[in-house]
Amino acid sequence: MTTVGEIGERELIARFTEAAVGRTSGTLPGDVVIGSGDDAAVFLSHGPVVVSTDTAVVGRHFRFDWSTPEQIGARAVVQSAADIAAMGGRLTGVTVSIACPPETVVERLLALNAGIVEQAHAYGARVLGGDLVSSPTVVITVTSIGVLDDVAPATLSGARAGDLLAVSGPLGGAAGGLAVLSAVEHGADPALVDTHAEAVAAYRLPQPDLRAGPAAARAGATAMTDVSDGLVEELVTVAASSGVRLDVDSDLVPRAAWLDAVSAALGVDPVRWALGGGEDHVLLAAFPAGDVPPGWTRIGRVSDGDGAYIDGEVVGAVRGWQSFTEN
Amino acid sequence: MTTVGEIGERELIARFTEAAVGRTSGTLPGDVVIGSGDDAAVFLSHGPVVVSTDTAVVGRHFRFDWSTPEQIGARAVVQSAADIAAMGGRLTGVTVSIACPPETVVERLLALNAGIVEQAHAYGARVLGGDLVSSPTVVITVTSIGVLDDVAPATLSGARAGDLLAVSGPLGGAAGGLAVLSAVEHGADPALVDTHAEAVAAYRLPQPDLRAGPAAARAGATAMTDVSDGLVEELVTVAASSGVRLDVDSDLVPRAAWLDAVSAALGVDPVRWALGGGEDHVLLAAFPAGDVPPGWTRIGRVSDGDGAYIDGEVVGAVRGWQSFTEN
Repeated sequence: MTTVGEIGERELIARFTEAAVGRTSGTLPGDVVIGSGDDAAVFLSHGPVVVSTDTAVVGRHFRFDWSTPEQIGARAVVQSAADIAAMGGRLTGVTVSIACPPETVVERLLALNAGIVEQAHAYGARVLGGDLVSSPTVVITVTSIGVLDDVAPATLSGARAGDLLAVSGPLGGAAGGLAVLSAVEHGADPALVDTHAEAVAAYRLPQPDLRAGPAAARAGATAMTDVSDGLVEELVTVAASSGVRLDVDSDLVPRAAWLDAVSAALGVDPVRWALGGGEDHVLLAAFPAGDVPPGWTRIGRVSDGDGAYIDGEVVGAVRGWQSFTEN
Repeated sequence: MTTVGEIGERELIARFTEAAVGRTSGTLPGDVVIGSGDDAAVFLSHGPVVVSTDTAVVGRHFRFDWSTPEQIGARAVVQSAADIAAMGGRLTGVTVSIACPPETVVERLLALNAGIVEQAHAYGARVLGGDLVSSPTVVITVTSIGVLDDVAPATLSGARAGDLLAVSGPLGGAAGGLAVLSAVEHGADPALVDTHAEAVAAYRLPQPDLRAGPAAARAGATAMTDVSDGLVEELVTVAASSGVRLDVDSDLVPRAAWLDAVSAALGVDPVRWALGGGEDHVLLAAFPAGDVPPGWTRIGRVSDGDGAYIDGEVVGAVRGWQSFTEN
């Protein structure tokens, strides 16, 4: 097994670049003037540019014994890209920084990179470069760049009394999958991982339909965010940013059909996962009263006041996935 | 002393955002539609967008006992911004990701952020958001975004036989400063740090004039890069990318006036620092035969063939600052 320290940074970056370019048959997409491999990438943007960055740390945000390197790479792209979608943007490119120990096996990094490249391409985007450095801890930072195609950006602060609240997909799946992996680590039957494969897959690689973001912006979404820290946490943020009261009916919050079986097996209320679990990266948005766009599910309403309420009870102390204070 | 773990990620991000926005009197510059604090930032770009990312790891790329947090933050911006300049771009914004242990003192991070914000503003750019996560190792990733103002990008691959080679400023200063700090750590007189303050300052916060990048592109630079890994390393890269031979006369390579005194004190040939030392982040470019732009110094020439030559001798085995293989 060859390590990064043996092969060296330059050679590995060359292989990363080859992977990114090779999959596009050697040609750059129309908007990318200069891709990976130079000091910087150059691309054309036919609209306002959207940018966001997200960092994942081994042992905290991912584990190599719980996910494949491909899944870890792809997930890092999903997490960052969801922020672009949450503004109403369409992903056009990502830059990737990987910090890892010299003793990291090259195959692991090539697989991680393959996951990054594949997920970016699945979104119609390109890997626009990156950095590879030595570090005792594996840290992956993805910066996503997108474009607003003739839509106004949907911020955190635009929700208005009378709006409807809606989400773009089922919630709680990633939390359910994480619970399965945690249970097995703490002595539960390892067969649970196969029995509840959909949940584990939802944790390993959430697959939100990020096209819902631009669609929501076109439909007039007044506020939007992605559910990365748990629905309650996002509700609290949007309520505070918009200066409104948000009410959600927990019965209306969609869950995947398979989540109740996971819940039964582990003895956990699935509503808890749907409200408090993070990392599903589906979108939460406020829309003017009326119909919500196709694929969206109405879960509540916006009114004058402040704070976030679930079934009429104020919430706020929950800090689902806060980086430094979670358990 | 309050720690990050005590104050929490959200509160600290709020303070970061306040620092970034407060210094611009609460208003966003014309091109930034949405700044730090939402899911993503939104800005307008009136030309091709340039993007690059750079990561710095504590103990390898910086040390808290060798630099102030402000210097570490500012230097991370310089290093990333230099890649934008090396394409001929003008920096418009940066995103910043900081990974650090929960026990990190808040004041240190606020100072780090202040250095980032000040350096970005010094370049006429803005902090467009970021991420803050818990990690056993301090890792800082800066993604720089710029714009090409009516110039063609200067790549690594455009140098042509007959071109001149030039650099935008003195070389070897950062290596000299690093040598002073290393010598003191290994027992040399601590007063050296004050005696050779310019060198130490050049290591702690290199101050290349990055306006030289767009100016070179306007002047028709055929190839350009920044000297991050040492001049020899960059020559090897440009020669290979452009498919040409590069010849440099070591006598022509500019050094800061104070570097020879550092050299005499430590008994090291200053030419070695100027040729092999990295992290000065001045620019290396090829220009069509004729005058080089104001501020640039001619150091050599481009001809048919391949490889990089110093004073007629081929170089290539030097790997100045390669992340995984340096000593």
